[in-house]
Order: sequence, then structure tokens, then C-alpha cells
Amino acid sequence: MQLFYAPDLTTPRYTLGEEESKHCIRVLRLRRGDTLHLTDGRGTLYRCEIAEEDARRCTVRVVERFPDYERMPYRLTMAVAPTKNIERFEWFLEKATEVGVSEIVPLLCERSERRALKIERAERVVVSAMKQSLKAFCPALRPLTPLDDLLAEPFDGRRLIAHCDAPRMEKRHLFDTLRPHENLLVLIGPEGDFSPAEIDAALRAGFEEITLGRQRLRTETAAVVATVMAATRNHTPDQTA
Amino acid sequence: MQLFYAPDLTTPRYTLGEEESKHCIRVLRLRRGDTLHLTDGRGTLYRCEIAEEDARRCTVRVVERFPDYERMPYRLTMAVAPTKNIERFEWFLEKATEVGVSEIVPLLCERSERRALKIERAERVVVSAMKQSLKAFCPALRPLTPLDDLLAEPFDGRRLIAHCDAPRMEKRHLFDTLRPHENLLVLIGPEGDFSPAEIDAALRAGFEEITLGRQRLRTETAAVVATVMAATRNHTPDQTA
Repeated sequence: MQLFYAPDLTTPRYTLGEEESKHCIRVLRLRRGDTLHLTDGRGTLYRCEIAEEDARRCTVRVVERFPDYERMPYRLTMAVAPTKNIERFEWFLEKATEVGVSEIVPLLCERSERRALKIERAERVVVSAMKQSLKAFCPALRPLTPLDDLLAEPFDGRRLIAHCDAPRMEKRHLFDTLRPHENLLVLIGPEGDFSPAEIDAALRAGFEEITLGRQRLRTETAAVVATVMAATRNHTPDQTA
Repeated sequence: MQLFYAPDLTTPRYTLGEEESKHCIRVLRLRRGDTLHLTDGRGTLYRCEIAEEDARRCTVRVVERFPDYERMPYRLTMAVAPTKNIERFEWFLEKATEVGVSEIVPLLCERSERRALKIERAERVVVSAMKQSLKAFCPALRPLTPLDDLLAEPFDGRRLIAHCDAPRMEKRHLFDTLRPHENLLVLIGPEGDFSPAEIDAALRAGFEEITLGRQRLRTETAAVVATVMAATRNHTPDQTA
């Protein structure tokens, strides 16, 4: 199955953009009546048929709708300081989308190496990963957000900060502290970690301190590790023949 | 702490190579008597002092040895089909080294997109990640190995194959089936997955079928997810203030 992204999808008929049309007709060589799948990125998967095989304005007919397609059984917001090397941060965006993430907040911290972010470029990485991994929910992607602003926001769920400094009270291992089906917000700091003042501020705001293990992980690695731990805690039971 | 790699280390004195010497003296600006750390990559960490501050042939004196430095409490061999895009495979090499892996076997499979591998380039990635993550054990890296050869080798531990085909008997979720402190071999197939014949051959050889969850993961993502699950199963208890 190849998945097309159509946030502006209309039913019962929809016209693909030029790029998607060209890909359908010239690359995939789809013809009238052939099946293809689209998503609006807001949870619905559409099984469609080619109606008009135009390589610039390809029209499809919606045949079947699958609302709430494979919704994650938990919500995960990863708030991560973008790395100086943007490819590393984009690696995290792609992998988090594949494994499962609801929202990504690029964080601006005291020790942030990267203090500006091209959000359109980040969006392209996330959309591409959503399509490739056949998801109908596109992770929400916020602009670069100062840590203080995020700490001040209300959040209905568990709020966790990963840091490498000495624990203020008790640092729980992320996997051990998670319970299935929770709503989670996880903070991952920049290359130089959160500052002591930032950690204190997070704790005053009610965040829990977590560790991802004894390893010394890069920012983007820590972010992917946390994402995998959350998915692992929430995975579905085994499959038999 | 900055870690230098010295597989040919001699005690009580050792002379760094040109590149490392230049890095010590010109970049880090270390001087006689300053402390630095070296590893032989075989498990020993050495605390050393600069003896002669030569920017081309810097000599150090070994002050203290830490044998068996932070050895993993389990063994993990990741046998992974290198991806067509070598950067994706190198991301896996780096991330697996950070998170914890004992040995990496690049796999040549029926559907492999990449049928040759520059092993020196892969070694540089692994050594770099070992130094950056302050490890004293360098993951062993084998040359590109045909799957059949690996299936025929004896292995003292659990042998697991991740695939996306229908289960032959029962597919266990990797995290659920793992027990702490095991010796593990995990197979991850190429972009088009293992072929049915390859899966059957692995099962005949005694491999267990596993799944990494419902998500559709790229090869290198699956490999990192498996590595994280193994580390998570084996992590050490919580830390208190």
C-alpha cells in the first residue's frame, strides 16, 4: 500500500496536486479504476479509485472511509531541543513518527545549540515518515517553543523531564514509571543538558525526573529511546498463527 | 571526560597517533600533567597523564586501570541487512553503539538492496560512537555475511528473527519474550523483508519468530528499536538522591 497525503481531501471526489498526480500516473502507472489510499492526516484513511488519469490533475473517487485508523492507544508529546546538526534532529522526527508520537515540540533551552528552526522543512520530514509508515495520524509539530512557555502550559497527563544532573528527589527509569494508555509529555534537553535552574523550574511546575538508563545518549538518541519505551509499554499482545 | 581510542595501548607509557596527538595538544590544549582517558576498546579504561606534550607524538603515562569498565549485563548481537542508503545503516551503527550492542553482523539476504559494504567506514562510525558515549567495549563488527552462513553457526543463547510475514507458529513480541542477562542474536531483514524461504530456514535452524509491534518500521528503525528493547529489559534499578 502506498499512502498519499491529502489534508484538504474532499469527498466523494478529490483532485491530487501536481506532484502527487505525476507520481500516480507516471511513476506508479496507475490507471482509471486502480486502487490507491489517501489520508487527511487527521485519522481517516480513504480507499479510493482513480477516476481521471491526468498526470497533472489526477482525480480520485472515495470508495471507503476508515475513520480513526489505527489510533495510538496513548498520547505522547515529545518536547526535544533541536540539535546543532539539523540532520540529527530530522532523524529523530522521522523515527519518532514511525514508532509513534502524537505531538512534537521543538524546545528552546538555555543551553540550546540551535536557536532557530525551519518548521516547513521539519514538517516535510514528518509527513514523509507518516506516509512511508502508513499512518493516518500526522504528528502535530509546533514551532520552536521556549522551555518556560511549555512549563507554564496546563497538560492533562504525566509530565516527565529526562536529565543527566543529580536527582533532586528521585529519578525513576522511564520504562518502569510508565503505565499503559497514559497521556505523556517527555522533555529531552540539548547537547549540554538542561541547566540546573531549568530542572528546578520543571520540578516546581510538577514535572517528574526520569532517567533513560546508564548510557550516555545524544539528544536525538535519547528522544528516540524515550519514544520506543513509551511504545513498548503500550504495545498490543502477541500474534499467533 | 573525553575518551581516546588506543587499541594498541602499552603501559606504563603510550604514544598517541598523529591525529590524536594534535587533538590533545592543539584542540584540547592539554599540557604536561593533565589528565585524559584512553580505552583499548576491549573493556579497560585507562586514566592517564600527559608525559610529553608533543602535537605530533604525544606521550601519556598510565596512572590507573579500570578493567571490565561498565560491561553490559547481557550480550546482544544485531544481525542487520545494510540499507541501500548507507547513511541510514550508519545511523543504526551509531545508535546501537550508544544504547548498547556487543556485536554487529551486516547481513546479506535474498532481497538485500545493498550487496557490498565498506567495512572500514562502518568501523569508523562505531569507534566514534564508542568514544563519544564513553564506552570501553567496542562493538565487534563483522564483514557482510550471507544469512545462510549465520544460520549455520552455533550460538550459545536466544536466536530471534524479526519479520513482517505471517507467523509460522507464534510470533512473540520481542520485549515480552526477553529475559534479563540473556545472550541474544536478533536478525533484522532488508527493506523488502526476509523472503518466506529465509524465514523457514531460520525456523528450521531453531530461531524464534518475533515482532517489534504493529508499526511498519524501516530496517534501520527496527534495528534500533530492537536494541532499545534489549537495553530496556536489562536496565539497572532506579536512582535516588
